[in-house]
Amino acid sequence: MKFKIDKNILLESLVNVVRAISPKNIIPILNGIKFELDDEGLYLTASDSDLTIKSFIPNENIIEVEQQGTIIIQSKYIIDIIRKMPSEEINIEVIDGLKIRIYTNDSQYNLNCLDSEDYPHIILEESKNPIIINGEILKTMIRQTIFAVSQQESRPLLTGLNLKIYNNVMEAVTTDSYRLARKTIMLDKNYEEEINVTIPGKNINELDKILDETLDVEIHIFSNKILFKQNNIVFQSSLLNGKYPNTANLIPNEFEIIINANLNDYYASIDRAALLTQSKDKNIVRMETKGNDLNISSFSSEIGKVEDRINIEKNTEKEIAISFSSKYMMDALKTFNEEELLILLNNDSSPIILKSIKDESLIQLILPIKTY
Amino acid sequence: MKFKIDKNILLESLVNVVRAISPKNIIPILNGIKFELDDEGLYLTASDSDLTIKSFIPNENIIEVEQQGTIIIQSKYIIDIIRKMPSEEINIEVIDGLKIRIYTNDSQYNLNCLDSEDYPHIILEESKNPIIINGEILKTMIRQTIFAVSQQESRPLLTGLNLKIYNNVMEAVTTDSYRLARKTIMLDKNYEEEINVTIPGKNINELDKILDETLDVEIHIFSNKILFKQNNIVFQSSLLNGKYPNTANLIPNEFEIIINANLNDYYASIDRAALLTQSKDKNIVRMETKGNDLNISSFSSEIGKVEDRINIEKNTEKEIAISFSSKYMMDALKTFNEEELLILLNNDSSPIILKSIKDESLIQLILPIKTY
Repeated sequence: MKFKIDKNILLESLVNVVRAISPKNIIPILNGIKFELDDEGLYLTASDSDLTIKSFIPNENIIEVEQQGTIIIQSKYIIDIIRKMPSEEINIEVIDGLKIRIYTNDSQYNLNCLDSEDYPHIILEESKNPIIINGEILKTMIRQTIFAVSQQESRPLLTGLNLKIYNNVMEAVTTDSYRLARKTIMLDKNYEEEINVTIPGKNINELDKILDETLDVEIHIFSNKILFKQNNIVFQSSLLNGKYPNTANLIPNEFEIIINANLNDYYASIDRAALLTQSKDKNIVRMETKGNDLNISSFSSEIGKVEDRINIEKNTEKEIAISFSSKYMMDALKTFNEEELLILLNNDSSPIILKSIKDESLIQLILPIKTY
Repeated sequence: MKFKIDKNILLESLVNVVRAISPKNIIPILNGIKFELDDEGLYLTASDSDLTIKSFIPNENIIEVEQQGTIIIQSKYIIDIIRKMPSEEINIEVIDGLKIRIYTNDSQYNLNCLDSEDYPHIILEESKNPIIINGEILKTMIRQTIFAVSQQESRPLLTGLNLKIYNNVMEAVTTDSYRLARKTIMLDKNYEEEINVTIPGKNINELDKILDETLDVEIHIFSNKILFKQNNIVFQSSLLNGKYPNTANLIPNEFEIIINANLNDYYASIDRAALLTQSKDKNIVRMETKGNDLNISSFSSEIGKVEDRINIEKNTEKEIAISFSSKYMMDALKTFNEEELLILLNNDSSPIILKSIKDESLIQLILPIKTY
């Protein structure tokens, strides 16, 4: 393998694929990035066996190809090496079979490499009928739901994002059993086959970083894996085994109390009340309606107390006092991007629902905390 | 105590004094900030007994004073509380003796406080004949030397910055015994008394963050403490006990090899060579002259090697090969701010000296590392 390439073109490709490499990985070959230079161009592949990312630089973006070939380069230093190279054009050449020389006029690195024969054979499969979706819509969906996945391995399925497709609807649900986020997207056409898969949350986080919001994404779904394809990048994740719990019936259909609040005022008020509860696990904050006032408060015996008030509109004379985790509330509030917000309530032990006034596509649910 | 004050004026003052509070402190009262409101204005004081910072907000910068008084407010939440207050004007009022109420129209915090009777009595002393120096010059001196203090408590004096004053010269020296930084400043006038004190490095770091570079600083030096005064802030540090080692004779006066290098090229080259040595303690990099070439290299048996070359000028035909810590070299190089740099050498076991071409006031010394 011997070629010359523009530093920034190679860097962009490397930065994308290296996201598949897990810092916890203990299999030496999976710390490497596979460089494959063939008739069509340069393919880079990285994988932690659970997640594989492959990117492609076509021949027309490579300055000069002198010899094709395949080698595995350790990922740990390669990005910094390329980034710090003093010239825009970089030469890369395999020497002695298992060494690579990366050089410009006055700088050269000789790095020990691994044999591509030892690299696992990974099949990146595409289906005949992929779902096509705009990158920005997919990224927004991820941002609005991913934070609510469970961090606890005791219920593995809840660490993933549940993705359903039926007719022309795509629905993403995440829950850690104390809160739930649900986003629905209308697709351009009907899909015959119903789909219900759960994707590991950590992989979805990496996907979000790679996706370009200006381009469409192809989604190829199989029974045990999912593949996202955009531009010259392919991203393949395994799926979590098992049936994701049915969450539809957790969200009430009717509400006794409907509060209309200014989103920024409400967020700032929760943020102030949360200050004194930082050190505790639960971060409990209490809110209480009094006509058109919403009082938000918290209390810590050692530090003191805080009382805050914002102005709201309410559909009923009925009053309510309810407590919840300020962290969960703020996480959920951050997913909305409008001036006003609906807070939907029944009583102090039934779920708090947040949604936009105009748009039903995003629902955030937070379970209240009973304080006695 | 009861007053109304502009949020940003109070914040600025708080952010400065809170730097004196040590996260390691275990004396409860020293986690507090002393608020003292008297005829002249509001004094804020914080201390970890080793370092005391006091700042002053004069009456004309306080919107309204209703009642004078003194109280100790826990430092942990106060800055976030003030910062998150929803209005520019904040009311602060002592209630029930040991509680403080911080409020605006719709938000209020009630915080438990500590009794000012329990706060240590700290004397902030000023001398009759302070040294006066420009803030920017003092900050530059700190930045050019502070990084070389020792991090090891085994030789406590080396964890400090040694400050000498003789005639119209101020000299700062730091060393961890592997490297040394020395900066001299010419003062506006002669000072009769010779001064030689050592200030704890961690306090100097905090001083740097507080100093305003547009204003002059007064320096008041006593046998066991040093006080810096600028604008409405007083910063008092203890001194380290003992006699700082005489370092003058460590810096050679004559050099066999004088190299003239472009600072940025040299730094970038060391930076590239250092990449492969990151994981090791010593970060050993080797440089070797060959006429007008300076070859910089490093080697790691697991990873590979790097070879880099820059163009230099040299005063002699004599060649040299010398090894050193890339980290120490890069730390030292960062203190220079010019295009060209002199690298002064004798042999592979005598100190490497860095200095500017125009200016003798800054000297950086790095001991070489013997490699066999």
